[in-house]
Amino acid sequence: MANRIQDLLTRMSLREKIGQMTQLAIDAIAVGRPYRLEDPLELDPHKLQEAIVTYGVGSILNVGTQAHSVERWRGILAVIQKAAGQTRHRIPVLYGIDSVHGANYVAGSTVFPQQLALASTWNPERVNQLAQIAAYETRAAGIPWNFSPVLNLGRHPAWPRLWETFGEDVHLVGELGLAMKRGYEGDDISHPYRLASCPKHFLGGGWPLTGQDRTPSWIPDSQLREYFLPAFARAIADGASTIMVNSGEINGIPVHANREILTTLLREELGFEGLVVTDWEDIRYLHTRHRIAASHKEAVRMAVEAGIDMSMVPLDFSFSDCLLELVEEGTIPEARIDVSVRRILQLKESLGLFDQAVYPLEEYPDFGSAAHRNASLEAARESIVLLKNEQSVLPLRKDQKILVAGPAAHTLRSLNGGWTYTWQGDQIDELLDKKEYPTVLNAVAGRMPEGQVYYAPGVDFEERIDIPYAVRAAAEVDVILLCLGEASYTEFFGSIDDLYLPDAQHALAYALLNTGKPLVLLLLEGRPRLISKFADQVPAILAAFYPGNEGGRAIADVLFGDYNPGGKLPITYPRYPNGLIPYDHKATESMPLQESGVRYNPQFEFGHGLSYTTFAYHNLSLNTPELTAHNLLVISVEVQNTGDRAGHETVQLYVSDHYASLTPPVRRLRGFKKVFLEPGALTRVEFAIRARDLAFVDQNGEWITEAGSFTAGIGGLTVDFNYSA
Amino acid sequence: MANRIQDLLTRMSLREKIGQMTQLAIDAIAVGRPYRLEDPLELDPHKLQEAIVTYGVGSILNVGTQAHSVERWRGILAVIQKAAGQTRHRIPVLYGIDSVHGANYVAGSTVFPQQLALASTWNPERVNQLAQIAAYETRAAGIPWNFSPVLNLGRHPAWPRLWETFGEDVHLVGELGLAMKRGYEGDDISHPYRLASCPKHFLGGGWPLTGQDRTPSWIPDSQLREYFLPAFARAIADGASTIMVNSGEINGIPVHANREILTTLLREELGFEGLVVTDWEDIRYLHTRHRIAASHKEAVRMAVEAGIDMSMVPLDFSFSDCLLELVEEGTIPEARIDVSVRRILQLKESLGLFDQAVYPLEEYPDFGSAAHRNASLEAARESIVLLKNEQSVLPLRKDQKILVAGPAAHTLRSLNGGWTYTWQGDQIDELLDKKEYPTVLNAVAGRMPEGQVYYAPGVDFEERIDIPYAVRAAAEVDVILLCLGEASYTEFFGSIDDLYLPDAQHALAYALLNTGKPLVLLLLEGRPRLISKFADQVPAILAAFYPGNEGGRAIADVLFGDYNPGGKLPITYPRYPNGLIPYDHKATESMPLQESGVRYNPQFEFGHGLSYTTFAYHNLSLNTPELTAHNLLVISVEVQNTGDRAGHETVQLYVSDHYASLTPPVRRLRGFKKVFLEPGALTRVEFAIRARDLAFVDQNGEWITEAGSFTAGIGGLTVDFNYSA
Repeated sequence: MANRIQDLLTRMSLREKIGQMTQLAIDAIAVGRPYRLEDPLELDPHKLQEAIVTYGVGSILNVGTQAHSVERWRGILAVIQKAAGQTRHRIPVLYGIDSVHGANYVAGSTVFPQQLALASTWNPERVNQLAQIAAYETRAAGIPWNFSPVLNLGRHPAWPRLWETFGEDVHLVGELGLAMKRGYEGDDISHPYRLASCPKHFLGGGWPLTGQDRTPSWIPDSQLREYFLPAFARAIADGASTIMVNSGEINGIPVHANREILTTLLREELGFEGLVVTDWEDIRYLHTRHRIAASHKEAVRMAVEAGIDMSMVPLDFSFSDCLLELVEEGTIPEARIDVSVRRILQLKESLGLFDQAVYPLEEYPDFGSAAHRNASLEAARESIVLLKNEQSVLPLRKDQKILVAGPAAHTLRSLNGGWTYTWQGDQIDELLDKKEYPTVLNAVAGRMPEGQVYYAPGVDFEERIDIPYAVRAAAEVDVILLCLGEASYTEFFGSIDDLYLPDAQHALAYALLNTGKPLVLLLLEGRPRLISKFADQVPAILAAFYPGNEGGRAIADVLFGDYNPGGKLPITYPRYPNGLIPYDHKATESMPLQESGVRYNPQFEFGHGLSYTTFAYHNLSLNTPELTAHNLLVISVEVQNTGDRAGHETVQLYVSDHYASLTPPVRRLRGFKKVFLEPGALTRVEFAIRARDLAFVDQNGEWITEAGSFTAGIGGLTVDFNYSA
Repeated sequence: MANRIQDLLTRMSLREKIGQMTQLAIDAIAVGRPYRLEDPLELDPHKLQEAIVTYGVGSILNVGTQAHSVERWRGILAVIQKAAGQTRHRIPVLYGIDSVHGANYVAGSTVFPQQLALASTWNPERVNQLAQIAAYETRAAGIPWNFSPVLNLGRHPAWPRLWETFGEDVHLVGELGLAMKRGYEGDDISHPYRLASCPKHFLGGGWPLTGQDRTPSWIPDSQLREYFLPAFARAIADGASTIMVNSGEINGIPVHANREILTTLLREELGFEGLVVTDWEDIRYLHTRHRIAASHKEAVRMAVEAGIDMSMVPLDFSFSDCLLELVEEGTIPEARIDVSVRRILQLKESLGLFDQAVYPLEEYPDFGSAAHRNASLEAARESIVLLKNEQSVLPLRKDQKILVAGPAAHTLRSLNGGWTYTWQGDQIDELLDKKEYPTVLNAVAGRMPEGQVYYAPGVDFEERIDIPYAVRAAAEVDVILLCLGEASYTEFFGSIDDLYLPDAQHALAYALLNTGKPLVLLLLEGRPRLISKFADQVPAILAAFYPGNEGGRAIADVLFGDYNPGGKLPITYPRYPNGLIPYDHKATESMPLQESGVRYNPQFEFGHGLSYTTFAYHNLSLNTPELTAHNLLVISVEVQNTGDRAGHETVQLYVSDHYASLTPPVRRLRGFKKVFLEPGALTRVEFAIRARDLAFVDQNGEWITEAGSFTAGIGGLTVDFNYSA
């Protein structure tokens, strides 16, 4: 295999090599104008010829198009590969797509909860299973490269891509990220049911100073390593095939031009040997937005010297032309080009593209199958977080009359979020049958006798529609299900500057609470929009962060008690828009008011989530109070289902380092295990901790576990131990 | 003089030296419990003896007490210095105080606008004048050391000490900070009218991640140098006598334990030879709050090794005892102690304390004089910013009937802020005569015929009082003056987690706007509390950031047109609580919505401020389009008063670097000049710019001006130029 690549490299012209480093959007080879393609999409033979044959473009990615059927995708891929077959070396084209929650650009595929919802399951096995299905269904469409998972931390509540993350915690993101990467890639990415993953956005994405997408971050080196690097490092150590670069700047340096991150850290330190692809148009943006390059050509030089292998150009040949000039004039040595081209060809080789670019359709009998959909439904159920349940409002009874209200009640956009059939996920209500994929309203109505479910949206997401009508309807019912939150969005389209729910939704909440009827608040949203102005008056609150196509059903299952919820928050749910403080903050951020005036006072804490049953924790114990560099600390606890229903509980181990050379966080999640217990059942859960599991990154950027005292906490119980090397 | 100090050092015992490094609060030597002292304050002879004689404490600071008369202060000081006179070497005690806006702990002194209000004047000469008066009146009370100015940048709108800064811009803070430092110190701090200044809080204070006071900051090195260092570097280069340390942590390291900042940077690089004092209890907090020291003694070691000279302990002898142990056991060499003690003795020497600790009262005939008060009044007038004035609502006419409403209308707390007679400034309404120091209500009523001014607070700052009454009163008048904002606070007492004005104040604004009466909104506040939910409906808006004791008068002058306002915002006034973006942001933070979704969309921009007249800018020109390392770029512009009133205009020069090796800000303030123009008058304003004035701090921490193209902008006009070395 290596011979084939070396042989190709020897025979390829410089232009052909640079073509391999070029990735265009399908828009660039289709009929119509970019972003305004004809529907149905048709490839333009002339553009195709120029791109694939003349320029030898090595990769195409999806974007300005909507979902196609498996057959249509295969047709498109066949035309592209046929063009590639006309080139001198017949190198297959690598097609990449954002299958971020299932094969979400393939019609009829199984669409899953988004990552933040998956994180609420705290279930790596489930995440792995869904990633396998996503790989299967994406490969069924002939596509071998998936721009997923997002391994950024979701630590800024306003960031419009928060819902694309696994939440705010390093350990949780690392565990679930690894599970997802393994589900995509398995042991052999040439397998018909696997594909190449693309952890993104390396490095430090998702922590802009202001919360706005793709805006500057300030991240000190130690914190970059301790918080933002681990999930990537684990996926890379596990053999992730590709990496996508963060579009933002860190400390004044756009990551696409940061050699220290893309080469010194990623290649030399982490040993990453796979392909590094830019994000959308990000080389050009070094010139036009970030303004560190005085010309486009200079931007190309910077990015290539920093370490990128492939440019997501995506709409013209400017990258190829500039890079050709840079090599021909001697600014960039051809040997540097060879390094990237070798990686690109190696990936194509590893994916089996040289031998069979697309596997036979017959190999994919389970595409969109009931089994796959059932996995999505199970995940959606597991993802729902019961935040509050007073006065036994939940579960709902089917002999009640219910008013379903709010803008999120009857749209699939609030169940699926962005990257769903279209980029912004904004056409799904037209594209899908809401009976087959019920909205919350349809799912609730489907469980109830006819005539018992009333519907009054009251408001749209931002605007009032008819609140008085909703109030009148409330007078007729026993209970109100108020569905607030957000529609679908992603990237900069989702930037906001006020974390509170919009005024119109507040007005509806006030009006319905004023009726005095019991009210269940269902939050369908991509980030924790603030509800503090009325949350105290609401007896029951559920959070569902884009649970996917089966979300309506799953929510109904939880509402009526057909499923006992067990989701836990993977983020801190803030109470107010300023003073946003994550769970693993410093002691100075949560001292009592009289001491510091600082209020760590979230609406709901990270890890919080109720059940229709109750759990009690007892007998937290250690095998030894003395951890050393050579032994294992086994922390165990008994957890018992003390209620009358079977249910899931996620046992969470937090450890606090009492003193450290850099100010220690008040606590860090160091382990979790999800258990299922019948009523009355008791189980013992154990966590085995090594010294390195308690390490942090010191002032010199080194991982270290410092000798000293620690506290372990589980379920409200604590126990102290010491560590000495 | 050096001989006296060297001689003392030779003769002093280790315990005596460590005593000099110890600073106690006056609470520690007074009758009563700390924070709950007897009133009037009495020194406790036993405590005094122990502190000054037994422990040889070198410094006392003010805090848990309220304002005393000059005579009382002199009495207290005399008792303290008498105790010092009983020690072996008769070293005088150094008394320090927060005279942050005048001698605000001295009864009858002249109290000025706070720093943010002073910054709104954009007038360094005025700042210098007031600092001279503050020095004069503080020294009149016998106190030679002032913990002022604050040279932190006020870049986080929610930070509760924002109003203690000169605002968000590096250049403006640097200019005004230098003017203030010079006003305090002059050329000779032993002069009876001068004192030692104490720029604070070194370094990086005021930029916590969450906006909460004394919580963690993440600041990269280049940005620390480019944004947070310059104002300190200028004051230090100008000979500032002392520096106070930032209580926060940067990048995980509390600054009080950061040798790189306190020694490598401050001493070795900046060459600072003065005294470094900790902030309140901050050595202990390394152990109890920051948790980087496992014991108090360890905390003392860290802070001394990092480079502090004096510990603001402030209530016990723990610092002295621990440090004595550390030296006696050999952990800290006595030579290290000598370094700090030499600096402390040098400061006492420079202040003339060895010769005459307190100058005769007769030397201060102008204490609290009409001339001093007039300077405060002038500053207050200059500080008021007219943000909006539509429908000719302002100036008010004296033949109108006016409703004065809102919680800030009739309290001196909203005029003065914290550090006014008491720490939180919360007793001022009881301490002062509101006729002599009128509130806004009293000042307005004083200008109007009897019976034409109505008053209805409507709400307190956080709670409703009687909005319907205010609405009924509004029906009787021609115009409403609505005074919203904040009471007084400082430090952690002022932490908030919602930048919007409190709900009660919103309710009052809505109700009064609903009356349809013309409304003038007067904002009295320490930071830009958000008004976006109703600002568009308000025809006239004034901002006054704690204008001081003469603020009521100054505001009335502006309201009635007796003074033509000319203040300009020294901060960006945000519109929404999230996505807080300063004026000198990056291009990626203010691209058009269709490109990026990001909205740089403040309520009012940095530098904004209207007048009752109008100004026009013409003929922006350069002496040369080519700046080099050796020439001067002279940028000139004509500004003309095109209205019918004389007025002040602050001409602001902004420069944009088109491309840079770190992403360049969209613009930076590089100069400003305040002019006064009669109606029709025209003047030419020139700025002479050298290459170094356009420098930024590059990736290696070095100041650099990179060759390339730039744009200069003044008053809406722009002109391009090039720079080449």
